[in-house]
Amino acid sequence: MKQEAKIPQATTKRLPLYYRFLQNFAAEGQERVSSQQLSEAMKIDSATIRRDFSYFGALGKKGYGYDVQYLIEFFRETLSQNEVTNVALIGVGNLGNALLKYNFSKTQNTRILVAFDSKAPLEGTYVSDIPVFPPELLEEKIAEYGVELAILTVSSRSAQAITDRLVQIPIKGIMNFTPERLDVPKSTHVMNIDLSLELQALIYLARNNQADS
Amino acid sequence: MKQEAKIPQATTKRLPLYYRFLQNFAAEGQERVSSQQLSEAMKIDSATIRRDFSYFGALGKKGYGYDVQYLIEFFRETLSQNEVTNVALIGVGNLGNALLKYNFSKTQNTRILVAFDSKAPLEGTYVSDIPVFPPELLEEKIAEYGVELAILTVSSRSAQAITDRLVQIPIKGIMNFTPERLDVPKSTHVMNIDLSLELQALIYLARNNQADS
Repeated sequence: MKQEAKIPQATTKRLPLYYRFLQNFAAEGQERVSSQQLSEAMKIDSATIRRDFSYFGALGKKGYGYDVQYLIEFFRETLSQNEVTNVALIGVGNLGNALLKYNFSKTQNTRILVAFDSKAPLEGTYVSDIPVFPPELLEEKIAEYGVELAILTVSSRSAQAITDRLVQIPIKGIMNFTPERLDVPKSTHVMNIDLSLELQALIYLARNNQADS
Repeated sequence: MKQEAKIPQATTKRLPLYYRFLQNFAAEGQERVSSQQLSEAMKIDSATIRRDFSYFGALGKKGYGYDVQYLIEFFRETLSQNEVTNVALIGVGNLGNALLKYNFSKTQNTRILVAFDSKAPLEGTYVSDIPVFPPELLEEKIAEYGVELAILTVSSRSAQAITDRLVQIPIKGIMNFTPERLDVPKSTHVMNIDLSLELQALIYLARNNQADS
């Protein structure tokens, strides 16, 4: 896919959501959808939806709305839904364990193929049917399994050291569940998911909202 | 805390991060910090930091930087760090279980006090030392434990029905780990954490980045 304008991160994060909701509309037999209908289903205001879509050129016609199948095809290609992305998980603690069981089973195009943990034996072991190796074998196994992305659920202490090795391989993207802010080159994308921060932000919103009303 | 301007959600999500990094600077004995230093530590550009801070009025002096202790006090109050917020978790499956074990132990001001699961007996049971009750007791136990926020890790199928009960209580905020977009009144805040969407967005970023280079 080619594009000139830089897509904001907030828009990027909504793309898979559009794809999911368009599939729902298609499943209900709907052929066209307006930004207003998408807005109501997705709880995002319709101006935001129109602006997001505008980054990708003319996706709809005025007064007609959007063609559901056309948009599904467009997002399927944009989001590489036809290709499988292999993922490695590093750090099989509580959260890592839960993510291995979860294994993004609702998505067809991603799978955790291999995991790493400092307690795993050299010959490997299995957790939720996924092979787990010690960090010594990181580079070797990531090449062997054709891994493109890593989920980082290690301790804060080890986060940067493991990251330094991942960017050398190089891995293309890291989903970072540690509270550390990782140093990476521009060619590696990091998605920070810090559950404590999210909860703190929610507390702020909930308490400030109450003060207003 | 009083403020007039509406704070953008992206800024809100960074507030706890500022607080955390300011504590790091204080722990290293630093008395002042520039937006440039914060920028390097947090991997956020300094213009964003100055704009975020500007929502809260004059927090620093030109050419002097920010007073670390003053900012810590400011964010501590803004983020209600002196009060404990009681949290309930609903749905003790794989992810719910991991979150009970995790229990935001790095934060001093939040704790999961009670959980709910459809398989729990009426008299309750314990998971990771946290009492778990069946959903029949939701309203009763949330009142008993003084719960303000709920973490939703139920199935998609039950998400809206449980939400409808939570907003009636009323609960102030919901951290939603289900893929559903919840219908809530304006007085209830929802923080959506959809791990599949985050992973899809990361794939998009990683693949598009590669195409550019």
